[in-house]
Amino acid sequence: MRAIGIETGGDRPRLFDVARPDPAPGEVLVRTLRVGVDGTDHEVIAGDHGSVPADAEYLVLGHEAVGVVEDPTTTAFERGDVVVPMVRRPPPSGTNAYFERAEPDMAPPSDCVERGIDGAHGFMSEYFTSPAPYLVPVPAADAPWGFLAEPISVVEKALDLARASRSAFTWTPETALVLGNGPLGLLAVAVLAPEMDVYCLGRRDRPDPTIDIVESLGATYVDGRQTPVESVPRVHEPADLVVEATGEPRHAVESVDALASNGVAALLGLPGPQDLTVDVGRFHESLVMHNKAVVGSVNAGPTHFHAAVDRLGELPAWFFDRFVSDFVPVDRFEAAFDASIKAAVEFDTV
Amino acid sequence: MRAIGIETGGDRPRLFDVARPDPAPGEVLVRTLRVGVDGTDHEVIAGDHGSVPADAEYLVLGHEAVGVVEDPTTTAFERGDVVVPMVRRPPPSGTNAYFERAEPDMAPPSDCVERGIDGAHGFMSEYFTSPAPYLVPVPAADAPWGFLAEPISVVEKALDLARASRSAFTWTPETALVLGNGPLGLLAVAVLAPEMDVYCLGRRDRPDPTIDIVESLGATYVDGRQTPVESVPRVHEPADLVVEATGEPRHAVESVDALASNGVAALLGLPGPQDLTVDVGRFHESLVMHNKAVVGSVNAGPTHFHAAVDRLGELPAWFFDRFVSDFVPVDRFEAAFDASIKAAVEFDTV
Repeated sequence: MRAIGIETGGDRPRLFDVARPDPAPGEVLVRTLRVGVDGTDHEVIAGDHGSVPADAEYLVLGHEAVGVVEDPTTTAFERGDVVVPMVRRPPPSGTNAYFERAEPDMAPPSDCVERGIDGAHGFMSEYFTSPAPYLVPVPAADAPWGFLAEPISVVEKALDLARASRSAFTWTPETALVLGNGPLGLLAVAVLAPEMDVYCLGRRDRPDPTIDIVESLGATYVDGRQTPVESVPRVHEPADLVVEATGEPRHAVESVDALASNGVAALLGLPGPQDLTVDVGRFHESLVMHNKAVVGSVNAGPTHFHAAVDRLGELPAWFFDRFVSDFVPVDRFEAAFDASIKAAVEFDTV
Repeated sequence: MRAIGIETGGDRPRLFDVARPDPAPGEVLVRTLRVGVDGTDHEVIAGDHGSVPADAEYLVLGHEAVGVVEDPTTTAFERGDVVVPMVRRPPPSGTNAYFERAEPDMAPPSDCVERGIDGAHGFMSEYFTSPAPYLVPVPAADAPWGFLAEPISVVEKALDLARASRSAFTWTPETALVLGNGPLGLLAVAVLAPEMDVYCLGRRDRPDPTIDIVESLGATYVDGRQTPVESVPRVHEPADLVVEATGEPRHAVESVDALASNGVAALLGLPGPQDLTVDVGRFHESLVMHNKAVVGSVNAGPTHFHAAVDRLGELPAWFFDRFVSDFVPVDRFEAAFDASIKAAVEFDTV
């Protein structure tokens, strides 16, 4: 069967011809429908993040997938069920407490592998197998957008951690600032806009389709070149919640400047190193005097995937239509890695 | 009556002769027993923090107090009840939502005053009055150490926020690192040591009475000059919980280096500004990849004061005896501002 992957030392994805996997009892054989491409894929391709499996010379890409159960083996799934796979799996050394308590997203990097990213083949192939507990059922009607459950789950987890961090007191966030109008930023805006006033900070010129989406969601676009993060409270208003979805290194510090008292900044983006002169005293003092918090968040657990599947049914159809700018068949897969907003490789239809 | 305060522009506390306050209905007249001195008092005296009341030319100091009800007026208190006052009060402009929902500690600085610190007279006088809801009852047996309920409440609140920030997943902290062996640091060690392995980082030479207290509590003293914060994981072990109790500006950033995956740093200390070159990308990435959090915490609310009063009954007697190094009568009050560990001014006995 066809699979899209990256060779060790390679600089661009290519097609591989690999054996169709054979599900063991307790595993499910899934026929892949669509697999999304995101910034992490580009980091993996560039060699900045992740790793090939220990015994392989290439990595099958893809961690945002939706598929149809082809063979449920001994599991409770039925042939034809639409499913989304979770990303993390136990490491080669075996399972551990994080997986045993169904919190794979809380495993340190050394205690897990990530399919399609770090140490395990992904889902960008005509079929894949997975143990049943790592598959989340999706209503058939939501199959076309099911591959978005994974990036939405990442947003859901960040919001879960952010809300928990404010659960010791009365906290009713009214204003959010989303940093970034890339795919993850747009999903955060889509999730938050029905609940509060949302500002979305980007660095693009109009006209731009992502700015149109931000505004169609009822949010306010902020040009970060004219209004940097720390100026948002003065020019607009302070934010009860900041969602950092760019990985810009300075944002971990600058987010705190944008917060209202008792606010929280949730960091999702993964930056590289960058030295910067920071007034660490002011950063520290602002956190203390205003009861502010910063939470980092990576990956997502089962509760977040289930929340994300629920969200698929709530977000407006126009959003998906405009957000997923490119559907690419397997034989033109290269185009999915050069999309204007968000792309998915289409392997099959329901 | 005698009161200890600081004049506008003054550089050391002095005795004032002020009128004994007259409680309004709903207020309680409290006869002061003991009032503790802490780092905030020194910051107020130095002019680095706080303010005198709007209509005054001096500020009565003291925010760590214990006293006895002298006149309960119309309240449910009885004469002779031992009480501890909370610190925050509504601002001159009137009450607000934070006070109405009994979360004064979550009020932004502009929405509250702080008795003895910022805009309202403190408790360092022979008598003080307070509305009944701001008084926390203390068992008579704990009266001698009741003034420590306030600093303990500050620790309790920080731990409350820290635990809340980790409440979205299974978190069983086993290791804590307390930064600082000043009074607040020692109280944090005393509170945490029965629950987990505690390291306490300071910068003092042995022999030192605070190091003796740390070790008597079963914690490990770490000399920060030999083992800086970021080296603690390598030399000892990573910490599930960091409690920052020094106000050293760089600690807001360095604390994250000391955390284990899924850990949280609770910041209590109040630093001044300080520019520092920081690898903000690594700071940001460590928060994200390891699901770490940083929470700032200031002041304390009623639930934390009640927890602190409970804690007074749990901590060993030897701890209080050694921790409070100096009891000073009012006529030698100056000595309380130059204590070796922790001092209190004694106004009266039960």
